[in-house]
This record gives sequence, C-alpha cells and structure tokens, in this order.
Amino acid sequence: MFGHSRWRSPGRRWPFVRRELSQLQVVIAAPEPGCDSYPRLASSEAYHLTITEPVAILKADEVWGALRGLETFSQLVHEDDYGSFLVNESDIYDFPRFAHRGILLDTSRHYLPLKSILTNLDAMAFNKFNVLHWHIVDDQSFPYQSIYFPELSNKGAYSYNHIYTPTDVRLVIEYARLRGIRVIPEFDTPGHTQSWGKGQKDLLTPCYNGEQPSGSFGPVNPILNSTYDFMTKFFKEISSVFPDAYIHLGGDEVSFDCWKSNPDVKEFMKEQGFGIDYAKLESYYIQKILDIVSSYNKGYMVWQEVFDNKAQLKPDTVVEVWMANNYAHELSSVTKAGFTAILAAPWYLDYISYGQDWKKYYSVEPLNFPGSEKQKKLLIGGEACLWGEFVDATNLTPRLWPRASAVGERLWSSSNVTDLQDAYKRLSNHRCRMLRRGIAAEPLFVGYCAHEARGW
Amino acid sequence: MFGHSRWRSPGRRWPFVRRELSQLQVVIAAPEPGCDSYPRLASSEAYHLTITEPVAILKADEVWGALRGLETFSQLVHEDDYGSFLVNESDIYDFPRFAHRGILLDTSRHYLPLKSILTNLDAMAFNKFNVLHWHIVDDQSFPYQSIYFPELSNKGAYSYNHIYTPTDVRLVIEYARLRGIRVIPEFDTPGHTQSWGKGQKDLLTPCYNGEQPSGSFGPVNPILNSTYDFMTKFFKEISSVFPDAYIHLGGDEVSFDCWKSNPDVKEFMKEQGFGIDYAKLESYYIQKILDIVSSYNKGYMVWQEVFDNKAQLKPDTVVEVWMANNYAHELSSVTKAGFTAILAAPWYLDYISYGQDWKKYYSVEPLNFPGSEKQKKLLIGGEACLWGEFVDATNLTPRLWPRASAVGERLWSSSNVTDLQDAYKRLSNHRCRMLRRGIAAEPLFVGYCAHEARGW
Repeated sequence: MFGHSRWRSPGRRWPFVRRELSQLQVVIAAPEPGCDSYPRLASSEAYHLTITEPVAILKADEVWGALRGLETFSQLVHEDDYGSFLVNESDIYDFPRFAHRGILLDTSRHYLPLKSILTNLDAMAFNKFNVLHWHIVDDQSFPYQSIYFPELSNKGAYSYNHIYTPTDVRLVIEYARLRGIRVIPEFDTPGHTQSWGKGQKDLLTPCYNGEQPSGSFGPVNPILNSTYDFMTKFFKEISSVFPDAYIHLGGDEVSFDCWKSNPDVKEFMKEQGFGIDYAKLESYYIQKILDIVSSYNKGYMVWQEVFDNKAQLKPDTVVEVWMANNYAHELSSVTKAGFTAILAAPWYLDYISYGQDWKKYYSVEPLNFPGSEKQKKLLIGGEACLWGEFVDATNLTPRLWPRASAVGERLWSSSNVTDLQDAYKRLSNHRCRMLRRGIAAEPLFVGYCAHEARGW
Repeated sequence: MFGHSRWRSPGRRWPFVRRELSQLQVVIAAPEPGCDSYPRLASSEAYHLTITEPVAILKADEVWGALRGLETFSQLVHEDDYGSFLVNESDIYDFPRFAHRGILLDTSRHYLPLKSILTNLDAMAFNKFNVLHWHIVDDQSFPYQSIYFPELSNKGAYSYNHIYTPTDVRLVIEYARLRGIRVIPEFDTPGHTQSWGKGQKDLLTPCYNGEQPSGSFGPVNPILNSTYDFMTKFFKEISSVFPDAYIHLGGDEVSFDCWKSNPDVKEFMKEQGFGIDYAKLESYYIQKILDIVSSYNKGYMVWQEVFDNKAQLKPDTVVEVWMANNYAHELSSVTKAGFTAILAAPWYLDYISYGQDWKKYYSVEPLNFPGSEKQKKLLIGGEACLWGEFVDATNLTPRLWPRASAVGERLWSSSNVTDLQDAYKRLSNHRCRMLRRGIAAEPLFVGYCAHEARGW
C-alpha cells in the first residue's frame, strides 16, 4: 500500500530518461454523488492512476476513489538528492479489499481535544482508513453535548471544558467527509453508562443491598417506560446529528449483578416469563433500542455480545467481533447466522508491549475462519481500536501510528501482500512521510528519517 | 515528593485565615561554589523552606539545594476556584535519600533533536533528578562531533544533520547546570562501537572466517598500540568537553566471537599468557582505558560486566548494575568488594507493558540487598534508562514521564514513602502540573486535568 518501489513499471529503466510531468487530470465518472454527499459503506474507492508525461490521469467512479488515488499519487512523488521531485511512470489499478476500515477512538476515558481528533483524521487519510468509530461516551465521562438533553454533559462530562459542542461534532464530521471518512458514533447501552446517570434521572437501575437500595447504579433500567421515552428522543437527535447510515449501539459487557439485586427488575422478569435468564432481559432492552433506531432509518452496529445473547437482529445488523479468545469461531458463527461482521479482536492497539508488535497486527488474515464463500463475503472489514484508559492527547498519535498503518494495509491490500521484510521497508518510509506531514508517528525500530532536522 | 497535601502544617486550619505572602527570601550559606561552578556528586541538595506571611524563607547550603527548594515552592503554590494563588503555611526540611538520581537517554539508536533533550532536562528538574547519563554513541550511530576526530561523526552519524556539534553539547551542559543537573557522557567501549569504526581506520577488530577476514568487524581492537593512541587523544578531548568529574566508559555486552576468530588476537592472547580466557583480554583493554581516563583526573562509571570480568578498578569506580536477573546479589557483590554502585536494573523504562507499570518501579527498595551498613552506603543512587531502540522525539516524553517520576520519588524520598494510593494521587497531580509546564507526560490511568482546554 505504501511507497513507490512496487509501482515502478518493469521494463522501464529510470532515470535514464527524465521527462516533465505537467499535469494530473482527475476524472470522476459518476455524475452523483454531488459535493455535499457523504461516503457510505457502498461507496466505490477504486481508482485507476496512469502516470505518463506530460499528463497523468486519475480516473475513479466516485470522488472517494479519486481521494484515494490522490493519496497514492502524493506517495509516489519523491525527492532526489538534488531537491528535484520525481515520480515514476506507472499504471495502477487499485481498490480496497475490505469496505470498512476503521479506527476506534475513545473520548470518554480521556477527553481528546478536537485537534487530536482532526490530526488523527489526517493520518487516517494518509493510511486509507475510511471509518472513524467514535466511542464518544462511556462510564467515565459524557463529553457529547446533547441538544435535547444538555444535562448529560453538564453533569456527566469531566468539566464544562471537556465537551464536544454541536459545532465541534459538525467540524469533525465535515473534516472527515473531506477525507472520505465516515463518522460512526457509538452510544453504548445498556452497560458502560455510569456517566449518563448523572444528568438523566431514573435512567440507570438502582442496585440493591438486600432489601435496601445500595446507592449505586447499574446498567440502564430496562423496565421503565421513561427509559424508552428518553432513548426515543435521544436517538432521534443522534440520527439527525450524525449523517452516516449507521449508529453503533454498543451492547458489550453488561453486568447482570445490579439487575439481579433489584426487586422491581426481578418482578418484571417474572411477568415477562424470562425466568432467571438475564440475557433475555438484555435482549428485550436491545430489541427496543434497535426498533427505535430502525424507525429513524438508521442501520446499526453492535458488539458481539448482542449476537451472543441472542437479541433479535435485523438482517443487515453489523456485528463487531472484539473478544480475542477464539474470534475466528465467533466470525464463523456470526456470518453463518447471516450477519455482516467487522473484526476488531486482534487489533486492540491500546495493548502495548516491547518491540515490533506491528508484525502481529500485520500477520492477521481476517478471512481465516471456517465458513463458506458466502460467509466470507459477510466480513466487510475491521477496526483498529485505541481504547483510552492510558491514552490521551499526549500519547495518542505515536501510540496509534504507525502501528495502525499495519492494520490499514492488511485491510486495503491483497491477501497475498504478507512479506514482513518488504512491509518493514515500506512502513518505515511511510512513517517518515507521516512525520513530514505533521503526524508524530513513533519509530518502528532503530534508524532515522532523512529529513529530520538537527537542533531545534 | 510531589504536591502540597503532605506539607500542610497540622494544627493550622486553612482557609480560615488568608494572609498575603509578599516575598520569598533565598539564603545560600556557602560562599562557594560561585556562579560558574557545576553540580557534583558531593553537592548538597538539602534545603529548609519556611512559608509564613509575609516573608517565606528558603535556606540552603549550596545553590543546588536552593534550586530544589524553589521547585518545591513552585509545587506548593496552587490556584483556587477563583483564580487566586495559594500556598499553605509550611515548614519543610528536605533532602535527597540518594546522591545520584539519573535519567539515561540514548541518542544513538535514534537521534534526539536538541529540543527533546532540553525539554527532558526541564522535566528532570521538575522531578528532582540530578544526572543526565548521556548514552551519546553506540553501534547504530555516532552523533557526537569530535573536535580531534571529525570523521567519527562525518562517517558514523546517520547524516550530517544527525549530529551534536560542540556548541550543541555546551548548550546541553549549561542548560543542565542551571537546573542542578550533571551531564555524564557515556563512550561505551570496547563493544557497542560499530559506528566508531566507520570514521576511524583500524580501530575495530577484523573478524575472520576461517583463514580469511570476513569483512565484518568486532569490538575495539585491544592488541594495537594505535588503539590506545587514539583513545588517549579522544578521551583527552572528552575530559575537557564534559566538565563532570565522571565519564561513563561502558564495558557492557562485549562479544568474544570476533576476537576468537582473529589470528593476531589469538597470538596476542598467547603472548600475554591469557590462555583462552577472553575476559582477561577485555580486562586488559579496560584497564588501559581506565588508566588513560584517570590520567586526566576523571573518575569513571562502568557497566557491571567490567566488575564481573574482574578488571582491576580504582577504588572509587562507580559500577552500574543493569542486569535484571538477580540484581540484589550483584549489588551485594559490588559493594562487598568496596565499590560504589548505581542501580539501573529494575528501571529500564524502554520496556513497556499495558497498564500502570509505574507501580512496579515505585515499589523497588534499592537497599534491599544482602550487606552491611557500610555496603549500603556504597549504593549512591539509581538511574531510569530509556534506551532508544523504539524511542525518538515522537514518543520520548510521554514514554518517560510520568513513569520516571516514580523512580524520581523513590530515589529522593524516605524509604517509608511507599503507599501506592497516596503516590497515585500525588503523581496524577504532578502529571497535570508537568502538562501545564509543557511536558507531554502521559496519563497514569483514566481521568483528566482540570486545566485541559476544549477544542484547539
């Protein structure tokens, strides 16, 4: 994916003949989409780049493919020792292997200033990622400033400074759009919602200590009508604020302890005939949320537990597989049941270790799970996840890049591009390129970038 | 070490009475050292800080103690919710537990721009570190621009841009001095010297493949007079460029394979009666280097193998213990033999892992090794080492801080300051303080700093 060496046309011997490239013509075939439209899962990112003098031509069906081709063109240009800019004659037909290539950023465990998010969007474009999975709120804080429910961030954010206003959110979405990147927000319920409870009365389940409320709260309370009234209004807002066709609804790691302690919940379980199977209660809740979101004509993504716990899902639900333990089996089950899947499990980049862990991420073959051709087609991509427990603006960029670049290439390039030594060379060059472009990508190993300046 | 809560005088109830502090008087007892002198191992860093209105008094024997006291004073000042700056009445007598509290930076595996080094010196001062162990050259590159031997960096640096000129080195030393920080350069020989060989003919041992030279080179060639002529001149320069009383001479990880392959070296071994004990050859070499450096009235530090391999050492040699395996035993042996020791083994901060590894560094008790009181006194401190294989300017600061702060407190504060919960609170505050001061210290765990700004 990165670097020019692979694109050198065999049979031509550079630099015996140097010619001038005077122009790059960009031709977009599709009359639609217009300038105000957004990238979609079904968008074409294919492009055909022909570099010959004096005019290079970049052809794409859609503007999104043209963006990818321009990125490639910019990576093909290199500077020689005399300061001239060169590009080899090339003929490239390129397109992504997977349609969904995402980066998850978590703005709840730590607040990320807008600048960090925008810089990361730049880096994503340099690495041909096309989805920002914005894990915007969680237990720890609620930085999203809601229009209908301003108390959620007033009380649930770390402070009045640690919020994303509607203007901020619009800026992120527009900055992403201009780079061909979808923004899929995640509003994870019913678990991971402690911060929601601060600004929204009666939303969370009161936990009990024997006969008495303990004073602490559990997941969203699934037995109250008020919960669904709130969610209806809340997701109406979210559906209109975020233009993408998908919303991520979370659904992971729901602890049943608090529900089990609450006498009203127990009574409700009995009425519904759920017995003591709290996964049924979770599914009951999730089903209602899915219905709400569907009614706004949005598709949804969910974490794998929603599938595991047998919530009834719309056929086009996207299930995100995150548990590292036996994820191939999970991919097999999800796709066998006919659901679209996204793979995140092997790419939790918040986990760090000494050395070159990019090789591990690079070596994953997403389609290496048991299943039919039809099943394989249901795996539409993957995500590199940088959860925020130990990450904020101080270390986000070097922790994410170039480690995520390895995931980016895996998701874009052909399955047979697997040579680690070759990848190392191209990644090292690409890392220096990112540095030149203002992305503080950390080194892969010992060495240097030619452009690095001495002193200040 | 960090934060104000511990210093609040018992018996006084703040903020019932608010008074004005109009002045901080600094009194330095010693007429010497004058302004142009450098911090030394024997420098006093003790200070006595009395904060009462209207005049606070900071007393110290030497300017170095006054610097530490000013740092403490700056950390005691805090801002209330209304923007007033407050400081509690306090009476603090403070001094370091260990005299040598170092940070090792490696500028060979990756070049660090001057700015990174200076920023790190600021951070060191904020954390009361007093030694920069500058691992300036190694196998990978030779960024030190020598006055006598300019070819060393001309050919051994990554490029002409990846060097430290004499002016750069003077700037680092002066910037450090103003913060009470000694700069101890390391010129590691006879191993770790591949980059030296590029600019200095015949310095390295030619390795053999059977009867023939293989074309590759091993450690410094210990059998040639020219080697010692070079080293005599080279260390004369180093002794004059670096004002500190100590030079670190390395001596670690010397591979004997190349020496063993070389027929001239084998012949020399026979002549000297070393048999096949190449550790004796290593000691022979080291002994000569020590004699050279001693002749310039410099003391020296060495890595533990120099002691392990039984080189004859001057009694005041400082032995740095770095091997993680059984370092307590090594500390015991080194001090039993009467040598001064520095502990680095448990504080290799280049090793990273997921989570709060600062706790591990914080929990080390350096004196927890078998030995007499006299032996314990020979352990004069420790160093946090950030080796550069995977570190450059992009990630140095967040990788080093606040993890090194844990080591800093361990080396400064009393041995009974061990409470992790208490340390967590103070470290978190201190990390926010570092951020405000321009040090991109990474987060310890989830949370936020009050001053963090929204948006850009």
